[in-house]
Amino acid sequence: MKHTTPKFPALLHGGDYNPGQWLDRPDILEQDIVLMKEAGCNVMSLGIFDWIRLEPQEGRYDFDWLEAIIDRLYANGIYTVLATPSGARPSWMAQKYPEVLRVGNDGERILFSGRHNHCLSSPVYRKKVHDINTALAKRFGAHPAVILWHISNEYGGECHCELCQENFRKWLKKKYKTLDALNRAYWSAFWSHTYTDWSQLHSSSEHGEHSIHNLVLDWKRFTTDMTVDFMKAEAAPIREICPDIPVTTNMMELYSGLNYYKFKDICDVLSWDNYPLWHSEGENSVPIHTAMAHDMIRSIHPGKPWLMMESSPSATNWQPVCKLRRPGMHMLASLQAVAHGSDSVQYFQWRKGRGGSEKFHGAVVDHYGKSDTRVFREVSAVGSRLKNLSPSLCGTEYPAKAAILYDVENRWAIEQMQGLHNGNQGYMEELEAFYAPFFHRGVNVDLVDMESDLSGYELLIAPMLYMFRAGIGEKLRRFVKEGGTLVMSCFSGIVDENDLCYLGGMPGEGMMEVLGLRSEETDALYPQDRNTALITHSLPGMKPSYEIHSLCDLIHLSTAKPLAEYGKDFYAGLPALTANTFGKGKAYYVACRMESAFYEDFLGALFQELSLLPPVSLPEKVTVNTRINSDTGAAYYIFQNFNSFPILLDLPEGWTDTETNTPVSQLSIEGYGVRVVSPSQC
Amino acid sequence: MKHTTPKFPALLHGGDYNPGQWLDRPDILEQDIVLMKEAGCNVMSLGIFDWIRLEPQEGRYDFDWLEAIIDRLYANGIYTVLATPSGARPSWMAQKYPEVLRVGNDGERILFSGRHNHCLSSPVYRKKVHDINTALAKRFGAHPAVILWHISNEYGGECHCELCQENFRKWLKKKYKTLDALNRAYWSAFWSHTYTDWSQLHSSSEHGEHSIHNLVLDWKRFTTDMTVDFMKAEAAPIREICPDIPVTTNMMELYSGLNYYKFKDICDVLSWDNYPLWHSEGENSVPIHTAMAHDMIRSIHPGKPWLMMESSPSATNWQPVCKLRRPGMHMLASLQAVAHGSDSVQYFQWRKGRGGSEKFHGAVVDHYGKSDTRVFREVSAVGSRLKNLSPSLCGTEYPAKAAILYDVENRWAIEQMQGLHNGNQGYMEELEAFYAPFFHRGVNVDLVDMESDLSGYELLIAPMLYMFRAGIGEKLRRFVKEGGTLVMSCFSGIVDENDLCYLGGMPGEGMMEVLGLRSEETDALYPQDRNTALITHSLPGMKPSYEIHSLCDLIHLSTAKPLAEYGKDFYAGLPALTANTFGKGKAYYVACRMESAFYEDFLGALFQELSLLPPVSLPEKVTVNTRINSDTGAAYYIFQNFNSFPILLDLPEGWTDTETNTPVSQLSIEGYGVRVVSPSQC
Amino acid sequence: MKHTTPKFPALLHGGDYNPGQWLDRPDILEQDIVLMKEAGCNVMSLGIFDWIRLEPQEGRYDFDWLEAIIDRLYANGIYTVLATPSGARPSWMAQKYPEVLRVGNDGERILFSGRHNHCLSSPVYRKKVHDINTALAKRFGAHPAVILWHISNEYGGECHCELCQENFRKWLKKKYKTLDALNRAYWSAFWSHTYTDWSQLHSSSEHGEHSIHNLVLDWKRFTTDMTVDFMKAEAAPIREICPDIPVTTNMMELYSGLNYYKFKDICDVLSWDNYPLWHSEGENSVPIHTAMAHDMIRSIHPGKPWLMMESSPSATNWQPVCKLRRPGMHMLASLQAVAHGSDSVQYFQWRKGRGGSEKFHGAVVDHYGKSDTRVFREVSAVGSRLKNLSPSLCGTEYPAKAAILYDVENRWAIEQMQGLHNGNQGYMEELEAFYAPFFHRGVNVDLVDMESDLSGYELLIAPMLYMFRAGIGEKLRRFVKEGGTLVMSCFSGIVDENDLCYLGGMPGEGMMEVLGLRSEETDALYPQDRNTALITHSLPGMKPSYEIHSLCDLIHLSTAKPLAEYGKDFYAGLPALTANTFGKGKAYYVACRMESAFYEDFLGALFQELSLLPPVSLPEKVTVNTRINSDTGAAYYIFQNFNSFPILLDLPEGWTDTETNTPVSQLSIEGYGVRVVSPSQC
Repeated sequence: MKHTTPKFPALLHGGDYNPGQWLDRPDILEQDIVLMKEAGCNVMSLGIFDWIRLEPQEGRYDFDWLEAIIDRLYANGIYTVLATPSGARPSWMAQKYPEVLRVGNDGERILFSGRHNHCLSSPVYRKKVHDINTALAKRFGAHPAVILWHISNEYGGECHCELCQENFRKWLKKKYKTLDALNRAYWSAFWSHTYTDWSQLHSSSEHGEHSIHNLVLDWKRFTTDMTVDFMKAEAAPIREICPDIPVTTNMMELYSGLNYYKFKDICDVLSWDNYPLWHSEGENSVPIHTAMAHDMIRSIHPGKPWLMMESSPSATNWQPVCKLRRPGMHMLASLQAVAHGSDSVQYFQWRKGRGGSEKFHGAVVDHYGKSDTRVFREVSAVGSRLKNLSPSLCGTEYPAKAAILYDVENRWAIEQMQGLHNGNQGYMEELEAFYAPFFHRGVNVDLVDMESDLSGYELLIAPMLYMFRAGIGEKLRRFVKEGGTLVMSCFSGIVDENDLCYLGGMPGEGMMEVLGLRSEETDALYPQDRNTALITHSLPGMKPSYEIHSLCDLIHLSTAKPLAEYGKDFYAGLPALTANTFGKGKAYYVACRMESAFYEDFLGALFQELSLLPPVSLPEKVTVNTRINSDTGAAYYIFQNFNSFPILLDLPEGWTDTETNTPVSQLSIEGYGVRVVSPSQC
Repeated sequence: MKHTTPKFPALLHGGDYNPGQWLDRPDILEQDIVLMKEAGCNVMSLGIFDWIRLEPQEGRYDFDWLEAIIDRLYANGIYTVLATPSGARPSWMAQKYPEVLRVGNDGERILFSGRHNHCLSSPVYRKKVHDINTALAKRFGAHPAVILWHISNEYGGECHCELCQENFRKWLKKKYKTLDALNRAYWSAFWSHTYTDWSQLHSSSEHGEHSIHNLVLDWKRFTTDMTVDFMKAEAAPIREICPDIPVTTNMMELYSGLNYYKFKDICDVLSWDNYPLWHSEGENSVPIHTAMAHDMIRSIHPGKPWLMMESSPSATNWQPVCKLRRPGMHMLASLQAVAHGSDSVQYFQWRKGRGGSEKFHGAVVDHYGKSDTRVFREVSAVGSRLKNLSPSLCGTEYPAKAAILYDVENRWAIEQMQGLHNGNQGYMEELEAFYAPFFHRGVNVDLVDMESDLSGYELLIAPMLYMFRAGIGEKLRRFVKEGGTLVMSCFSGIVDENDLCYLGGMPGEGMMEVLGLRSEETDALYPQDRNTALITHSLPGMKPSYEIHSLCDLIHLSTAKPLAEYGKDFYAGLPALTANTFGKGKAYYVACRMESAFYEDFLGALFQELSLLPPVSLPEKVTVNTRINSDTGAAYYIFQNFNSFPILLDLPEGWTDTETNTPVSQLSIEGYGVRVVSPSQC
Repeated sequence: MKHTTPKFPALLHGGDYNPGQWLDRPDILEQDIVLMKEAGCNVMSLGIFDWIRLEPQEGRYDFDWLEAIIDRLYANGIYTVLATPSGARPSWMAQKYPEVLRVGNDGERILFSGRHNHCLSSPVYRKKVHDINTALAKRFGAHPAVILWHISNEYGGECHCELCQENFRKWLKKKYKTLDALNRAYWSAFWSHTYTDWSQLHSSSEHGEHSIHNLVLDWKRFTTDMTVDFMKAEAAPIREICPDIPVTTNMMELYSGLNYYKFKDICDVLSWDNYPLWHSEGENSVPIHTAMAHDMIRSIHPGKPWLMMESSPSATNWQPVCKLRRPGMHMLASLQAVAHGSDSVQYFQWRKGRGGSEKFHGAVVDHYGKSDTRVFREVSAVGSRLKNLSPSLCGTEYPAKAAILYDVENRWAIEQMQGLHNGNQGYMEELEAFYAPFFHRGVNVDLVDMESDLSGYELLIAPMLYMFRAGIGEKLRRFVKEGGTLVMSCFSGIVDENDLCYLGGMPGEGMMEVLGLRSEETDALYPQDRNTALITHSLPGMKPSYEIHSLCDLIHLSTAKPLAEYGKDFYAGLPALTANTFGKGKAYYVACRMESAFYEDFLGALFQELSLLPPVSLPEKVTVNTRINSDTGAAYYIFQNFNSFPILLDLPEGWTDTETNTPVSQLSIEGYGVRVVSPSQC
């Protein structure tokens, strides 16, 4: 069992603390300590946007005020997650060195403003970051309170300045070696676009190239690589000066600007900022979508715990409608994170600021300033409960025998392809449709990318695997051959890693053999169009037919057996779902997009067959996740009720309530309630 | 009684006259005079966009043609409203001095084009305007025909050039004195945005800062101040040379680019351009919205008459659907203005031009060129009627015992805040919901801002008074204490004049005591969400319950009494409407947004209690406004029927038809009709 | 009879062939030949985007590879349509001469990217194009395989660079001679916009002028003239070196960026690229819309055959939803073109590329690479049938006795006018409503512009002829006077060629006399508004009333007789449809927009009266077009069934199936089927 913060191996509870906004109000700073203890907080994140206070003039550092805060928190039992300040640079720096400011897609350099607008290439910026990070590490690296480094804040975006263009060209040279190789990879013979000199290359942009899809992809790949490189450079002095303190950076859910999987080797601990649209119009899908995001982040470090670095204890002020969290929802949302492997519940932010764009962002302490508020009471309840659960859950792992292939490069490639449904290819919706049955049946699942190790899984879902890269064809072949069960859906295996179509039949890279079929054409349906899949060979629990929307692959079978056929249109009778035995395993092909019942029933049947189901059957909108203590083998089932009313579950014999350590046979869970139970250990 | 145009104290009828477009058609210029007399016109606005003709080359003025026109009009009994030409500059000026052209929000200087695109700072532009205005004043200031100066045209917009940036920085220095004070007012500690040098400050813009809301507000305040300053400078030579002729500038309804209330001291007479969407899809709200706009303009100079400087006698060509005014609607729309205090009905424009973007804008004379048209006949009818009404109505005042607080800075602050319902906070809709009962019951009302004198009012409505400024907390406290009735609605008293949240409980500035309550949280509802207000203590005429949408404040009462409570959701039973006695007055709090019936019934009850109702009860879509001759005390009730069918009203005894001077007991008003009646004087 | 490609007078079948993308795959190039023959192809278009391969370095031409391809194709019976490569310039040119790149509406020069982005003025670009075209003509002009020159590709767009501004100013000087004339034509007296120096003029643009509508129109006219001038310059060396080979350029349907009618004198053969939204949501109107586009292109060279240069044999990848063509639809779509006068069916492209933005654009050969696909079989079927039809149809004409006035300048003027319905004036919808009866009744019709010769027609439809130019008033007067039947609809004859409104009554230019009426006002209806036209004097087959939407003209009749009157609103009883006898002809005025049944019934009655109907009555969604051999007088009726089910038609006696040369009395047409039949010749 490996703890996320070894120095203080406990479930963390706390949030972003910005005392720099209140330095002229010592009464408030004192009151904070009292309230933090009342709320059961044991950690605060400090320094996230404090550069101007840490280095008020170029080269003059002022860390004393920060140390005083860290000391006082520590004296009161509160640890520190210490941030590097690169998320927002000081005004004097933007003024003296305009190169630190980003140039947009439109070629315009932005003015000093907002945050997150630094060039990733700028040598000056890198130098300034290196220097202040070195100083911070030297000053605080050995402080007993500091348990984690929080590198920058929500990395994102891209810069199109000339320095970045030069770096992009270097990156391309390194990748392709010759212009000839690049031209081939870009299929630039089309529209006479062959590059004859490296200097002709430029980021994809509004006023420039966006029709060479692989160039667009390369620009995205480059941006991720530059961000990783920047973070590496940021973290370097810290790792050198205080190698024992882990580092993290806070990610943003399924943000598509970066390929977060590339961060796996440079973060010791993963963490993310979680702002679901609880109680919104799409209410039913919010818990599922959030669960999937938790699983995505965790899967970058498969099985290991991680941290929920930010969340709002109340309304989130930048959402379209800023609805209050209903009573209990804060507990449920917080423990959902823990259920998926988080070792913390943290907030943005501890206390609401008086001004600026986030002054109405939910926080533990409101402008009112006292603890007799509904939100404060809900936060305190989470604090108590985390304290109680910490000995059991902290550091436990999240074992999964199933995985869904979610590859960010594939997503990028799909989102910019031209064909089928321009504007929205529906990829994320299909991904979520395949994910939902895991949520509804309580089956632990990882979200892996094409570079991940697939060997430990028994079931692998590959929704719309349009782009094949990282030898995924060979990996999937081996996976099935050795006994795995693969489910692949339509419009997969179309292009290689350079976005070049496979010749000679699709899906490419040998998958025609694994699946026992070839796809000839794909029909795109209008939003109002529907077809039907008639089940000709049913798996247990499946209905006689399912409604089809969006996409229909027209396939020819070689060795595959049809399980369903199209009910109408000119391809009526052609297979809509197939199964193929290959080696010791089985490969299914879902040739079209169907109503959600199909995914529930079909995957439900596979879960049954592969014995992946938990020993409890779940009512609607109730789910369960399992965490395991890898040292003792103890298992913890964390049941979550996303209904507003209570439910009652029958448990197998011999189970115990983890929090009260008493036996439990019927589990009652209140509306928006959470229960943690452990089976009798064998 | 003070007349808007003392030199010619009559109800004015006329419009923008652009003979400069027809100088090569003397036959048309002659025909104009004949037609003007036929249409009953007594005034024309001249010179609005004539700079290129008045100064065809730099420094060479040519005013002779204009004088000839003024003379001829005057010889035919038609007075002149004379404009300064700054609304559109000549091509030679833009070419020689590019600095006169505006720089947009995106940092780009626009090309010579359209109109209204001059920099407000440019010394060259100010000099050129000063010179030509001086020359115009010298030439025409003593002309017997000139009764009013029309300064520029529809001021609006902003300029982001370096000259304006410099002026903005000066303005900020003057306002805040120190950077420290500015940083505090901007809460710039957030996101490390502390300014360390005045030169770092820049207008809020697309490529720059927009997350510091008080900077955005300051930029808007600065733009208003610069426009006021520009107008002052424009008017200076005129005021000096011909101090007896009043000046005005034509405003644009509820245009939010400028705070028109800041113009109160620099305009002698207020005027505005009125283009309602008559007969549009939102037909029922058009008369209400237009009435509110009339009241807003008038309230800048409370009680005093004003002018409707522009209106279209037919379709308005830039509206989404350019519908013809139905027969009678032109009379009704014209006299609605008079009913709300206007001493004129004026048009844009007298004769349709042959080309350009407004060639299809409704005008008195069509391209056809003769008087045998429906529109010309309707205009002539208005001319006759104004002539008949002039002796009674001209110069009469508009007395109001009730006011609604509409503060432009509050509107700006709400429109850019982040929270509740981003994109549309629904503030203007709420304002109109509170205004509608005044329209439906025929109660005169002013729209005052936070700097206005509140002492004369008995009833004050404060919808969503999010931002408190100008000591409004203290003013409201005194207003209630001394016997006033205040109605405040939810999300009020949240921030101070710097957009900084009040600490220690809301609404701030002592309003918790006045209202007898504290607001803890505000829930934002999704568009499809509804709650119910159950009336627990009814006022006369109120229903047992009302539907709630959009917003619900969760409040704690101290001394207030609940009048209604929430019917459902987790805050069922909490108060939704409260009343508090404070000093000699009463303060109501409407904690949520409700269906329109609530505002009608609740304010209806207050009108009754405070004896604000006129002595006639009104059918649907019929309203009445009251003008008073302050010398004689004579009252004029102007009834307006916005139905397309006739209605019949019973009047109290002894009333007289003002136009025929005959007694009237039953008042019949035709569809789209207007009747003016006077009660027996006591 | 004049053939489009005299050197090879046959119906052409083929497509864009891009071997330059496969030069490293000789196996694929060989396979191409085999497949082309299997598909019945007799022509390929070559060199369209090959500049970088034809001139890999500045001044070094490499044509050998192209010659080898042309030779090999020719050896296999396949002719070549040879393109000039100006549609996309090589990277080295953009790098060395940035002036060749276009400057956008926003003043920004775009980067090297996409295609179609060359400046139309750049002397360097013109020189480079001239040089390579000369070299190509010299090398290939005498090649026996080359039957047609394909100049550039899909000309479109505009450039705002300083070179183009200078050319624009020259163009303006040439057009207006004096600034005074320009100012009058621009009505620039409005808003003081009078130009005092030619250098003040600038293209209409985002940051500049767009309120002077005639300037906007001039910029569009100039762009067309520059494009025509560019094409002339492109074609000059070709015409000189190989005068016997005709030239064409491929147009884009009803693309409004250019006035294609101005290309009539510089193209020997017209051709266009046809990508209908078959099977889309607006399914019923797709065949009608496509038929109208075919007729528009043909009408530029009235009666003469033309070529369908591009089409997709399957899905079109850049459409919103990329639906597969249902079985049979490819045949129907291909022969619809032939029915309307095309002498070819050509594709973009022969073989799908592996990368780039059009890798999923339908093609004859898929990535799969073999002929056993549904699409390949459908293409081959078209090949066989064209071969069979060629002797009868190739070179036949398309005679029409009716025409619709579709003038691109009028469309431009309507689309940017301000008034009625801003955003969408519904002009194209009205045009299509008038066109539909021709489709439904099988009446050949041309789409002529105001410069066309009208003398050969018996029936002329003039929908919303807002702008009068090219003496159209006089032409229409003569047309009616000499016996023609004219149908004009509301809001016609409003402005002259300078977008200046007519004074003294509308419609202008004497049309009040021809139509016997004057229009006073036009009412714009809201989308939900409806009125009714009550027919007071019925033509055969008309209903008692029709629903009215969008627009209602309020007219006064002089000599015209009312045929229908408005059923409601304040203009109930006013005429909604009128007829006037003028000279030997008749002029109808449709004063409002009506439901489609009106256009069907009213034009149906006129077709009957004028004996324009074919001798067969058509079921729903079935149409017929007639081609005539001008040498023999033989007629060919091409019936097209746009239903998915079969239909059966009774033919007059003595008709023959053209393809089998057997008599036919009952014609059975399968779903999506086409039949060609010839009447007994008299």
